[in-house]
Amino acid sequence: MQFIDGGVCAPCGFVANGVLSGIKAGRTKEDTALIYSEKVCTASGVFTQNKVQAEPVKLTRSRVKNHAAQAVIANSGNANACTGEEGAKNAVRMANAVSKSLSIDEENVLVCSTGVIGQQINVKAIEDHVDELAKGLSKEGHEKARVAIMTTDTKYKECALETEIAGKKVRFGTMAKGSGMIHINMGTMLGFITTDCAISGQMLDKALHESILGTYNCVSVDGDTSTNDTLLILANGMAGNPEITCEGKDYDDFLAALNALNTQIARKIAADGEGATRLIECNVNGAVDVPTARRLAKSVISSSLVKAAFFGKDANWGRILCALGYSGEFFTPEKTSVTFESAFDGGKSIMVFEKGVPLNFDEDLAKKILSEDEVKIQVQMEDGNASGTAWGCDLTYDYVKINGDYRT
Amino acid sequence: MQFIDGGVCAPCGFVANGVLSGIKAGRTKEDTALIYSEKVCTASGVFTQNKVQAEPVKLTRSRVKNHAAQAVIANSGNANACTGEEGAKNAVRMANAVSKSLSIDEENVLVCSTGVIGQQINVKAIEDHVDELAKGLSKEGHEKARVAIMTTDTKYKECALETEIAGKKVRFGTMAKGSGMIHINMGTMLGFITTDCAISGQMLDKALHESILGTYNCVSVDGDTSTNDTLLILANGMAGNPEITCEGKDYDDFLAALNALNTQIARKIAADGEGATRLIECNVNGAVDVPTARRLAKSVISSSLVKAAFFGKDANWGRILCALGYSGEFFTPEKTSVTFESAFDGGKSIMVFEKGVPLNFDEDLAKKILSEDEVKIQVQMEDGNASGTAWGCDLTYDYVKINGDYRT
Repeated sequence: MQFIDGGVCAPCGFVANGVLSGIKAGRTKEDTALIYSEKVCTASGVFTQNKVQAEPVKLTRSRVKNHAAQAVIANSGNANACTGEEGAKNAVRMANAVSKSLSIDEENVLVCSTGVIGQQINVKAIEDHVDELAKGLSKEGHEKARVAIMTTDTKYKECALETEIAGKKVRFGTMAKGSGMIHINMGTMLGFITTDCAISGQMLDKALHESILGTYNCVSVDGDTSTNDTLLILANGMAGNPEITCEGKDYDDFLAALNALNTQIARKIAADGEGATRLIECNVNGAVDVPTARRLAKSVISSSLVKAAFFGKDANWGRILCALGYSGEFFTPEKTSVTFESAFDGGKSIMVFEKGVPLNFDEDLAKKILSEDEVKIQVQMEDGNASGTAWGCDLTYDYVKINGDYRT
Repeated sequence: MQFIDGGVCAPCGFVANGVLSGIKAGRTKEDTALIYSEKVCTASGVFTQNKVQAEPVKLTRSRVKNHAAQAVIANSGNANACTGEEGAKNAVRMANAVSKSLSIDEENVLVCSTGVIGQQINVKAIEDHVDELAKGLSKEGHEKARVAIMTTDTKYKECALETEIAGKKVRFGTMAKGSGMIHINMGTMLGFITTDCAISGQMLDKALHESILGTYNCVSVDGDTSTNDTLLILANGMAGNPEITCEGKDYDDFLAALNALNTQIARKIAADGEGATRLIECNVNGAVDVPTARRLAKSVISSSLVKAAFFGKDANWGRILCALGYSGEFFTPEKTSVTFESAFDGGKSIMVFEKGVPLNFDEDLAKKILSEDEVKIQVQMEDGNASGTAWGCDLTYDYVKINGDYRT
C-alpha cells in the first residue's frame, strides 16, 4: 500500500472540478465542487446523527439507499439547514442542474452543503455556474474541488493511495473539510472517497461503517456535532478486480486501505480545527475493549480544559484524569498512568502520573514536548488489552474569535 | 418566603470563619473556610459522578452516610485529587485538626477541597491555622468563609432566605464556588447549605436530590464535570418546627425554599463562569417531559459554538437548533420556535425561527438584546407540556487565557 497524488481523481474514471458561484458575499476562491465518474458507481454514505438534518443530507441519504451514484455536487458558504421546504427544493434544484448538464440520471446525483445554518441558499448562482463546472471536469480538477468545500479550514484535506486487491492495482482518493462544529458522530462535516475498486453495495456499506468507528468518529474539534456531517464513498469498479461480495482477504485489504485513508484525513481535520495551533492525539491502551478505549480517548481530546491547557503548553495532566473520569466508561484510576510524548524530536516522552500516583517531572522538558505541532497523550491502563485513539486540537483565542462572529 | 442577609450564618446556631493558611503561593485572601453548628446537624450530600474522585470527596461521602455532621472545613488552592494514599491521609488530617480544635467528634467533621489536581496539599499549613480558624468563628464569619472557597471566581456566591414551615420561622443559608470545570452532574464544585429547620436525614436526602435536578445540575460552564463536585446541607433543627419526617405540606415548603436558594446559586455560578461576560438562560417549553426539557436546554447552553456566538453578540440561532439536534433527546424540529429575550430593558424579545422556518429579523434589535448581561433563549416546542431551564455563560478569550496556564 502506498500513498499517491491525485486526491479524488486518483482512481480510474474519476474527474473533478471547482468554480466560484458566488454563494457567499466576499468569497474569492471556489465555492462549488463537482466529482464525476464516467461509470455509474456503487455508493454508500454515512450521515450526521444530529436530529436536525440539513436538506441536502435528507436528499443524499435517500438517494444513496439504492447504492448507485455517478456525480456529487458540494458547496461551501451555506449549509442549507433549518431552511424548511424551500431549502428542500433548492437541494433538488442543485442535483437537477448537474443531471441536465452531464446528461445523467438525476437520481444518481448526490448533494452536499456546508456553511452557515438557517439562511436560504443562493441556488440561482449555483445553477448559473453548473455548465462551467461540468465543462471543466478533469483529472487535475481535484485541486479546485478540494478548495471549493473549505469554509474556515486553513488547509485543504486530501489523500490518495494505491494498493493491490486480488492481484489488481486499486486506487482510493479522498477529500474532506473540517474545522468547526466537529464532534463527529457518523461522518465528518463533508468527506468524499472515490475508488476504482469493484465492490458490492452491501460490502461497501459494511466497510464504510466499520472504518469510521476508529477514524472519523474519533475526531473532535469542539464537541458540536454538525447538522451536515456526510461522508460518501463512490466505487466505479474500473480497477478490474473481481467484485468484492463477501468477507475474506480482498475485503480485509479493501478495509485496510480505507482505514489508512480515513486515518490520514481524521488527523488532518483535527490538526486544522478552528483556531488550532497543534494536533493532540490520545492513545488509550490496556482498556477492557476497543469501544471503551476509543470513548475514553475521545473524552480526553474533547475536554475544553485539556484543550486550553495544551494551548498554554501546560502539563496539567490532572485535567486528563478528570476527563477520563467523567467519560462514563470503565477504568481503574489507581492503575492508570499518563505519559506525554512528542511526535517529533526522536519521540521524547515524559511520564507524569504512574498507577494512580503523581510524579515529580521535569517541567522544562514537558513544556518542550508540549510545544510541538503534534503531541501524543499515552494513557496506560491495566483493565484489559484493548487500544483506542482519538484526535483533537487545542482551544485557542482564535477559536473564540472565529466563532464569535461567524455570520458577518 | 423572603431573601435575607447572613449567608451560611443566617440560620440559628451556625457560625463560620475564613483564614489564610498559605496553601498556594501568592494568594493574599483567605483560603480555608470553616462552618460550625452549635448543635450536631442532620446532614446530606451529593457528590461528583466523575469516576476520578478527590480524596476529600471520598472521605466526606463516607462520613455523611450516617446523616450526622457538626463542622465543615473547606480549602481552595488545591483539590487533593489524584494524590493517592498520601492525599487520603491528608484529608483525614484536616478533619482531625478541626475535631481537636473544636473538641467535637472527628466523624462529624466534613472536608472539601478545590483547586489544582494532582499535587499534594500543604496540610501542615492548614493544621497550623486551624486554631485561629476555630477561635474566629462568628455570625459575621460567612463573609470570610465565602471568600476562602473562591478560586478563579470573580464574585462570591452566597444567598439566604427565611420562610415559614408549620408556623415556625425557618432560615436557610448557602455559599458556593464555581467558575471552571463546571458541568454539574450531582453537585457543584463546592456548595454548602445550612438551615435551622428540623428534618429527618431521609427527607433531607430526598429534598437535596430532588432540588439539584432543576438547579445545580442544569448549569454548565465548560462541559467538564469536576473531580471535586460536592454539595452539602446541614440542618440543626434549632428553628423549633416539628421535625419533617414524611412528605406533605411541610416537606413541600422546605423543598420550595431549597429550590429558591439553589436556583439563585445556579444562576450566580453560570454568570461567573470562567471568563464569562454574560449569563445565558435557556428555557425549553412544550417538551415531552421535564427531564427531556432540561437536557435539551442544557445541550444548548453547553455548546461551544452557541457560547462563542453569544460572546460575539451574534444572533446565530442555527447553532441553537444544531445543539438541540445532537442532544439525543426527542423533539420535532419542524414545530420548534426560537426567541431571544432580554432580561432587562422591559424584556424586549425577538423571534428568529418559527415552527421550522427561519424568519427575517431586525439584526440591530437582536444585537441590542444580546448585549445585555443576561440573555434568555426561549425555545417553544409542540411535543408536550413540560418545561426546563438551564444556565450557562459565553465562551470568551478570557476563558482560554485563564485555562491556558492555570497551574503557574
